[in-house]
Amino acid sequence: MPMVNIQVTREGSGPGRDSVTAEEKAALIAGVSQLLLDVLHKPLESTFVVIDEVETENWGWGGLPALEYRRRRAAGQA
Amino acid sequence: MPMVNIQVTREGSGPGRDSVTAEEKAALIAGVSQLLLDVLHKPLESTFVVIDEVETENWGWGGLPALEYRRRRAAGQA
Amino acid sequence: MPMVNIQVTREGSGPGRDSVTAEEKAALIAGVSQLLLDVLHKPLESTFVVIDEVETENWGWGGLPALEYRRRRAAGQA
Amino acid sequence: MPMVNIQVTREGSGPGRDSVTAEEKAALIAGVSQLLLDVLHKPLESTFVVIDEVETENWGWGGLPALEYRRRRAAGQA
Amino acid sequence: MPMVNIQVTREGSGPGRDSVTAEEKAALIAGVSQLLLDVLHKPLESTFVVIDEVETENWGWGGLPALEYRRRRAAGQA
Amino acid sequence: MPMVNIQVTREGSGPGRDSVTAEEKAALIAGVSQLLLDVLHKPLESTFVVIDEVETENWGWGGLPALEYRRRRAAGQA
Repeated sequence: MPMVNIQVTREGSGPGRDSVTAEEKAALIAGVSQLLLDVLHKPLESTFVVIDEVETENWGWGGLPALEYRRRRAAGQA
Repeated sequence: MPMVNIQVTREGSGPGRDSVTAEEKAALIAGVSQLLLDVLHKPLESTFVVIDEVETENWGWGGLPALEYRRRRAAGQA
Repeated sequence: MPMVNIQVTREGSGPGRDSVTAEEKAALIAGVSQLLLDVLHKPLESTFVVIDEVETENWGWGGLPALEYRRRRAAGQA
Repeated sequence: MPMVNIQVTREGSGPGRDSVTAEEKAALIAGVSQLLLDVLHKPLESTFVVIDEVETENWGWGGLPALEYRRRRAAGQA
Repeated sequence: MPMVNIQVTREGSGPGRDSVTAEEKAALIAGVSQLLLDVLHKPLESTFVVIDEVETENWGWGGLPALEYRRRRAAGQA
Repeated sequence: MPMVNIQVTREGSGPGRDSVTAEEKAALIAGVSQLLLDVLHKPLESTFVVIDEVETENWGWGGLPALEYRRRRAAGQA
């Protein structure tokens, strides 16, 4: 009866996207459910998955909002 | 000082509704707070409740997005 | 497919107990599952509940560890 | 590698605001990351913070939706 | 910067085990981190995973403690 | 009414310690509650904090159990 919670920033994974697509969500759900079946023998129907998309300004890393931290890292300042 | 987190899909509980209503949320808050008072003697004012409505495409069950899984179950395929 | 997480301090609800009993846990599980059935028509078998017992020194309230805060409130100092 | 989750109601902290501002979010992220550095010597870059803004009708306190509970407390009824 | 939380009951996946083994945990961590790399192009080093083992009496399903629910299902009563 | 959840590995912050001390926990509780007062004007008594200590083998980073990942990073291999 596993419960899996996946938190990611609300961003596109490539050009022209600004959020996780329905196909990507389905792939995450399928993949993690299969993993629990493979590793712990949990039946697919007993696993719940919740994907939580978080606005980038609500996510902190390195003491900064995530996008600012990434900019500084890319610029070699963090 | 209990904290209760209730995650449900963002759906209506009947025709013409597409989300949990304010009355239903109030009933969940009242019910679970009363339950903690009855079972563990926790005063109402010390219990926090957060209801988290999750888009159906962000919820996985049976290795599939939840609506797809329900459709297959209803069709006897899952 | 609701998921309910209940966090409480690891304490007994009465004299001679130092944690939540199995019977109390079963009552919480039964009560909150029934509540979701009554309010949102969620079938019992689609609700997962996790009870999380937290050591009292790991719980903060009023800027203090919970037991210290309770002592001060009882003494009229908080 | 701490993970910090901060749940607050989606409200403004003063007149003319109806949600937490980007500056306030940045201050929360900076402050809690620094706290983990100061107290547990966790490097800033190893701390993740997620701020979760919750609609007031989804937050329960005192067995009531939060705003209703606050109104009653202000009126001396709770 | 995904954060993944995996909640499972504290049980062995086969005879002679009473909890998830270190090898199984490592396989869950590797698998879910790889999944986020494959699906969302998240670098491995930006993903945090926390596995949360829950005592079976703290887990509810079907309105019952999980082991009791499984027994009834196995007996065709739930 | 903020709720703050702090997840850290169960480790000592210095020689001779193998977990977070009660003093460190109190400092985290005091610091984060004060932060919410300073930034969002939340009264101390309306903030709940839960500290969740996670066994190091239950924490994943970089696709590996956390201690293994740290060893590789220290050795310049990750």
